[in-house]
Amino acid sequence: MVVGGAALARERHPNLRFLLFGDEAKITPLLSRHRALRGVVEVRHTDQKVEASDRPSQALRQGRQSSMRLAINAVADGEAGGVVSAGNTGALMAMSKFALKSMKGIDRPAICGFLPTLRGESVMLDLGANVECDQDNLVQFAIMGAAFARTILGLPRPTVGLLNVGEEELKGNEAVKGAAAILNEADLPLRFMGFVEGDDIAKGSTDVVVTDGFSGNVALKTMEGTAKLFSQFLRTAFGQSALSKLGYMLAKPAMAALRERIDPRHHNGGVFLGLNGISVKSHGGMDDVGFATAIGLAVDMVADDLIGRITTDMEKFSHHYDEQAEHDDAGDDETRGRAVAR
Amino acid sequence: MVVGGAALARERHPNLRFLLFGDEAKITPLLSRHRALRGVVEVRHTDQKVEASDRPSQALRQGRQSSMRLAINAVADGEAGGVVSAGNTGALMAMSKFALKSMKGIDRPAICGFLPTLRGESVMLDLGANVECDQDNLVQFAIMGAAFARTILGLPRPTVGLLNVGEEELKGNEAVKGAAAILNEADLPLRFMGFVEGDDIAKGSTDVVVTDGFSGNVALKTMEGTAKLFSQFLRTAFGQSALSKLGYMLAKPAMAALRERIDPRHHNGGVFLGLNGISVKSHGGMDDVGFATAIGLAVDMVADDLIGRITTDMEKFSHHYDEQAEHDDAGDDETRGRAVAR
Repeated sequence: MVVGGAALARERHPNLRFLLFGDEAKITPLLSRHRALRGVVEVRHTDQKVEASDRPSQALRQGRQSSMRLAINAVADGEAGGVVSAGNTGALMAMSKFALKSMKGIDRPAICGFLPTLRGESVMLDLGANVECDQDNLVQFAIMGAAFARTILGLPRPTVGLLNVGEEELKGNEAVKGAAAILNEADLPLRFMGFVEGDDIAKGSTDVVVTDGFSGNVALKTMEGTAKLFSQFLRTAFGQSALSKLGYMLAKPAMAALRERIDPRHHNGGVFLGLNGISVKSHGGMDDVGFATAIGLAVDMVADDLIGRITTDMEKFSHHYDEQAEHDDAGDDETRGRAVAR
Repeated sequence: MVVGGAALARERHPNLRFLLFGDEAKITPLLSRHRALRGVVEVRHTDQKVEASDRPSQALRQGRQSSMRLAINAVADGEAGGVVSAGNTGALMAMSKFALKSMKGIDRPAICGFLPTLRGESVMLDLGANVECDQDNLVQFAIMGAAFARTILGLPRPTVGLLNVGEEELKGNEAVKGAAAILNEADLPLRFMGFVEGDDIAKGSTDVVVTDGFSGNVALKTMEGTAKLFSQFLRTAFGQSALSKLGYMLAKPAMAALRERIDPRHHNGGVFLGLNGISVKSHGGMDDVGFATAIGLAVDMVADDLIGRITTDMEKFSHHYDEQAEHDDAGDDETRGRAVAR
């Protein structure tokens, strides 16, 4: 998948070069199958690897010579423009944070991904890096998510919504309300549309959906689960009678188009935003096509200088941000109180 | 919808009788259309009603003679076994809480609903009443949700899962971890299966999914949105060519079966659990069939003495619960700290 994905990505981006980290004895024979990779791949051998079951802290301590860690180091050292891995998400996040460090002004990096919607595609973050977030985290996610949407979706001024619940008086927790107040005032290269609800994600009501890592992860996986449920119900329905089976045969190209549209391979790649380097997680269980999509994301982020964009936006915002912080001394206490309580 | 739903429900439950609250001049002509309702309906006239745009606090203060409030009062007074309304959710919740009061041992009532899954149907709560929940809230939700599943799904010992995120070291916040620890120890008429993720909801991995009102609301609405997205993609796909249109014609009964299976009218009704009385919210935009489903829920909960079941379970649990509370003095401080921080 990794080598095949690299070959596909190379066909799309003819200047691309690769450092592959891992067991040379396994990688080299695979390389010979792909003409596209001839002369553009350097293999860096290591025996050590991070297992799917490793805890992030364990990987961080014991995996200093793992293929994952060496690949991240190559980004930190400026040897590589970005790292793409299909390995252990928690380990990749922990190691990326440790080796690449958080950007100035970003308290917590977030996992960002994109999803199919009625209108095309939307960006959502955080998808699971931070189970609890305060208003400042959410504001930073909004800024990073908008920069990502400008880069990946090519939108000059993306719309941003804060995920919230629907009931009037219960409208959200303090973090969501506080973030909305800040985003309403701030002068940023995005259009803040206020609160959105769960059904707005698939509708594509906004280009960017901002939420904490708990709700974001729940929403993402709920979407996946619901899509599978629907597919299963559809299969059962079509298998029901000879006539419906015939109907299915006739509609097969239409069904293929539908599958293509919701094909997770075209939406593959969770991006760690807020680090001083590009780090992309490819979902497990992908094939060449899916992995090439994840590589493509990294390429676009490097080519478009996403990190530079976020830096600029954060600097522009910092004036407002500092003002807000001074104004919110009570708010700071709140945040501190909450942090202590945990 | 209300009168038609009552007529349908009466056909299913021949001993059912109704008190209808509202404008007599509007209700009476509708009643004459339904033979099933002859002699079993009493209309209680009132001019006042809660508007969809009313804030819950406003409805509580100013809506003392509203049809919604009078209907809830009828439950509080023992005149009616339960109340069903398609009105303003926040107002119905606030008024129900005020007039019916929380059950002993239940700190916060929750909104509970049921959803189609691969395995049939599951129960989920809280769907939006409480945006932030501590471990005790979640444990109480588990007990109430299991009792509801025993009543509505007829399961003697339902499985219960706590909604959480997937990343290893990031596995959930303190509330979720604490609730899991308590549920693992407690002797209750349910099988606690530990953590589940968003995709487990549609899979039906557990009969009951427990979560806070923020994530629950996000998950519910994300499911709705994704189902709509999929339906829309399917329509587009089928409309693509003459052949696929013909395929659709042949598969029409199959598609009707699919629609029937995910028909929200069969899963209508958000139940307020944890009150000393049955209160059911029918979704807006339903028809007779959907409203009759919501009435049926109320009937089943009364017939099966759901409130008695929850009371018994809470009493059985209280020994464990008190022990846990003593043991968790630090935990209490945490909760207090968090409450103060807001």
